[in-house]
Amino acid sequence: MANSQYEYVKSYEIPDPLMPNTFAVIRVDGHAFTKFCHAHEFEKPNDIRALDLMNRAAKAVMHEFPDIVMAFGESDEYSFLMRRDASVYGRRRSKINSTVASIFTSNYVFYWSEFFPKTPLKYPPTFDSRVVLYPSPKEVRDYFSWRQVDTHINNLHNTCYWALRHDGVSGTEATKLLEGTFSDDKNELLFSRFQVNYNNLPAYFKKGSVLVRTDPRLTKGPSQRDAECTEAADPSGSTTAVPSESGPSLPGSDPATTKKKEKKKKAPKPFDGRSGPTVILHTDIIKEQPFWAERPWLLE
Amino acid sequence: MANSQYEYVKSYEIPDPLMPNTFAVIRVDGHAFTKFCHAHEFEKPNDIRALDLMNRAAKAVMHEFPDIVMAFGESDEYSFLMRRDASVYGRRRSKINSTVASIFTSNYVFYWSEFFPKTPLKYPPTFDSRVVLYPSPKEVRDYFSWRQVDTHINNLHNTCYWALRHDGVSGTEATKLLEGTFSDDKNELLFSRFQVNYNNLPAYFKKGSVLVRTDPRLTKGPSQRDAECTEAADPSGSTTAVPSESGPSLPGSDPATTKKKEKKKKAPKPFDGRSGPTVILHTDIIKEQPFWAERPWLLE
Amino acid sequence: MANSQYEYVKSYEIPDPLMPNTFAVIRVDGHAFTKFCHAHEFEKPNDIRALDLMNRAAKAVMHEFPDIVMAFGESDEYSFLMRRDASVYGRRRSKINSTVASIFTSNYVFYWSEFFPKTPLKYPPTFDSRVVLYPSPKEVRDYFSWRQVDTHINNLHNTCYWALRHDGVSGTEATKLLEGTFSDDKNELLFSRFQVNYNNLPAYFKKGSVLVRTDPRLTKGPSQRDAECTEAADPSGSTTAVPSESGPSLPGSDPATTKKKEKKKKAPKPFDGRSGPTVILHTDIIKEQPFWAERPWLLE
Amino acid sequence: MANSQYEYVKSYEIPDPLMPNTFAVIRVDGHAFTKFCHAHEFEKPNDIRALDLMNRAAKAVMHEFPDIVMAFGESDEYSFLMRRDASVYGRRRSKINSTVASIFTSNYVFYWSEFFPKTPLKYPPTFDSRVVLYPSPKEVRDYFSWRQVDTHINNLHNTCYWALRHDGVSGTEATKLLEGTFSDDKNELLFSRFQVNYNNLPAYFKKGSVLVRTDPRLTKGPSQRDAECTEAADPSGSTTAVPSESGPSLPGSDPATTKKKEKKKKAPKPFDGRSGPTVILHTDIIKEQPFWAERPWLLE
Repeated sequence: MANSQYEYVKSYEIPDPLMPNTFAVIRVDGHAFTKFCHAHEFEKPNDIRALDLMNRAAKAVMHEFPDIVMAFGESDEYSFLMRRDASVYGRRRSKINSTVASIFTSNYVFYWSEFFPKTPLKYPPTFDSRVVLYPSPKEVRDYFSWRQVDTHINNLHNTCYWALRHDGVSGTEATKLLEGTFSDDKNELLFSRFQVNYNNLPAYFKKGSVLVRTDPRLTKGPSQRDAECTEAADPSGSTTAVPSESGPSLPGSDPATTKKKEKKKKAPKPFDGRSGPTVILHTDIIKEQPFWAERPWLLE
Repeated sequence: MANSQYEYVKSYEIPDPLMPNTFAVIRVDGHAFTKFCHAHEFEKPNDIRALDLMNRAAKAVMHEFPDIVMAFGESDEYSFLMRRDASVYGRRRSKINSTVASIFTSNYVFYWSEFFPKTPLKYPPTFDSRVVLYPSPKEVRDYFSWRQVDTHINNLHNTCYWALRHDGVSGTEATKLLEGTFSDDKNELLFSRFQVNYNNLPAYFKKGSVLVRTDPRLTKGPSQRDAECTEAADPSGSTTAVPSESGPSLPGSDPATTKKKEKKKKAPKPFDGRSGPTVILHTDIIKEQPFWAERPWLLE
Repeated sequence: MANSQYEYVKSYEIPDPLMPNTFAVIRVDGHAFTKFCHAHEFEKPNDIRALDLMNRAAKAVMHEFPDIVMAFGESDEYSFLMRRDASVYGRRRSKINSTVASIFTSNYVFYWSEFFPKTPLKYPPTFDSRVVLYPSPKEVRDYFSWRQVDTHINNLHNTCYWALRHDGVSGTEATKLLEGTFSDDKNELLFSRFQVNYNNLPAYFKKGSVLVRTDPRLTKGPSQRDAECTEAADPSGSTTAVPSESGPSLPGSDPATTKKKEKKKKAPKPFDGRSGPTVILHTDIIKEQPFWAERPWLLE
Repeated sequence: MANSQYEYVKSYEIPDPLMPNTFAVIRVDGHAFTKFCHAHEFEKPNDIRALDLMNRAAKAVMHEFPDIVMAFGESDEYSFLMRRDASVYGRRRSKINSTVASIFTSNYVFYWSEFFPKTPLKYPPTFDSRVVLYPSPKEVRDYFSWRQVDTHINNLHNTCYWALRHDGVSGTEATKLLEGTFSDDKNELLFSRFQVNYNNLPAYFKKGSVLVRTDPRLTKGPSQRDAECTEAADPSGSTTAVPSESGPSLPGSDPATTKKKEKKKKAPKPFDGRSGPTVILHTDIIKEQPFWAERPWLLE
């Protein structure tokens, strides 16, 4: 039984390379997550366990793709930034896209019980994903601004909505009350009715989560003065290391490396964001300072 | 904080509809499964638990996509056939492709412990996927012939290889012994050295698995005289039903339906393969008879 | 001065093959032809010189592409049907599309003076083009039906409009008179006001022009009982030959061919529409009979 | 006869927008021009009439597309640079590509007799075209460097080849003599055997032709100290104007504009290369200075 007579069907696979030297953003989205959240009794407006699990899945994606140098997550979605010079899988769109969706999904299910120890997973969740290309750094920054502004808008709305609901207001009534209100109105509502100052809520909820790698040669990562930093539980420890742990991998402390350096006195290669420990930040990524300014490699 | 200044980034999403009225085959492939099989001590050459789990994941994909009317699996890959008139998700390629990869992956991890009760999952597996379009029925049939011939070739080779290995032959030596041999040589080797008649091995291994839906109006599905039929364990019972169980849904036995029929005497719509219980067959899909001839809706 | 450092820019050319085994229709459209017709004082509603010139340009396209087996033209547009097994230019979409547009344009300008001997070309006209793929014969037939129905609708409208204009009615008034009318109303208008029976107008105007090749082995081409056939002037004689002229190329009359045939008695290859003289028909291509039924190779 | 039943075929046209905010280069290439040059007895190695005609056709393309801000031509090819913010035709790839090919072809044939008054056009020539996208200015510059280095390499080779041929050397022999030689060898050959200093040959041949628009508000265009400038004959005068002619359109000299300025004192919009007279340069476009440095709008 020879297969040669049928192999022509392979020729119907049309090549789908991503345009060279463009930034690729791969966005993963939860499918039917309203139902999924309800079925698993997610806390409202934010369930830290669920957000931590999203972050865990995102870290797994970054671990598999060194060329993915940044990720941003909120609610049931995560966006991954791939370096413009990435050549992984010959830049095949379908291959990259489906692999990211699969890794994310796989880790979400695999680590579920760790983040929801008392809530069995009732059915397997699904995520879809898409790849969007951006030719220049400006668009990449605007993309992430778009997502973070969205985080803010949604979180402020949800904080109000669920404060009302927990206060006994019906869903229909709560929706009606918030209809047409602006940010100021919502802040005022929270403050006057619930004595909540929105600004004091955790940055985790207000700003979403940003994953980046840090230069292992630095004892201290880029400034995090304006950021809050939460560490998602990572039992394997494989992809996450807090900056302070990365001291031992400083080139200076490695005898083999030191030897070579003495001989060649070569300038060390600048950090490119493709290796090193991953950290999770909850910081402003709309403004230039300090996030983007301190990480020029993200948009190189 | 308005988002309107950033929303333009959405316009970079290029539409990617599949060509109308063409058959789409979505093929899911295990990523780095040699390592995965080894880490989880899969039985060689075929691990029924692993194949059953693949079938379980494939059934979940069909359950989500009524337009997927057939699937064929072997080893760590599965191919799904989508009707040419499918309009799901506006036929968006990335959306369909990533969703299939995600559902498959999610179910594989979710149901792992059911099929491998004594083997904990050590790390989450990954699958990638691609969509290939075929304009006519001939190519679709040739595609599935290509995969089933591949199943045969691989299984015959692996059966020989692992018979030798279990007999104490080293991997290098076994590979060398099989190099350049034809099917006849391999059959002869199995018979003379191991008293194994390859033809008597389970069709499950020799022919792979075919998933199709059966017409719930029939008490008996299409002829399965040449097929062996294994039922993957399905605790939820949601997508699988053996044909004999589907008796109660016969139109004739449903009073409401009967009433309508009396009034309108309309001819029943022909079965289109989009609903009804899913069965798993291990049958020849290369020949016209009986598989394709009995299921004209697959290539409509 | 070496070029190697710059050659990487070639890698940005993304492959764009047409899906294998699908019919391609390339449609050429005149750009800003209202202005062009006016500038060159085309006769209204139909200028035979202009239609003949369009046909001449279309024949040149077919002459260059044996895989283009049929063409249909009306007004300032022409549609070309490429066989589904065509492999010309590696099926590269941009290459095929731009070449067709260029050949058409080039011949239109080149032959202008022959068809408009008394009207100098004032400025060079432009045509754009696009490629549309169809997976099955049904869609190809429906495509050409779509264009021919369009021919009919436009021609009936234009015949009425220009009859009114030539009768002294203003453009605005004529448009207003025809607004909302159906075919019957327009036929009635022509008959009662202008004593014109629309059915008696030339098929050339009512049905557009169809270009196909005829089997050179036949003394008589497919039945043209329902068709009118006009021959565009072709001074070079390179691509057009009326069927009766093709007698000398009958295999039977060629001694060399006869000899071979006696030896081998091979069945002659069926005609595939890729060679042979091109004829221009003004016939119905909506109905199966006789056009499509007599030319099965068009949809093979 | 309604057309609605057939209109569904329109839905098979897949949208093909160019990625937003990327530079598009459209390259037009002569098809089978070796034969065409021979048939029309082009002078070798360079026929100024033919190059002038190419430039004329290129100017027509720029005249139609304000967003095409630069073009570079050599031999039988021409490359057009479209601004990254162009929105013409909804950035549809096929429409832009085929229109450029058609305009170029149309003008080539239309103006033929003006540039070749004594050589009748024997048959209509064809050009194909393709669109290549570049995400950043660097690649655009490298693209044009690639083409201009190619011009140099070809011209040096052809100058030697035809010097030998005109000297009585056969084609085969000339090819053999030049095989494996470097630039230095070729320069030496020209100098020692033919007393030709390659550097003294016209820049038109050595550097190809560059078309750009000049700011009509300037009495003098950007520095052309290193460039030679030839003006292609342009009987209509519609698109070309030598810089000195554009004086009258200086804002300061236009009373209406002056009035407005007095009121608003607005800063004038910077020149964007989309309007103004087109000039033809034969200058270095590989180095930054002065070509690119003086025209920052080309890569904006």
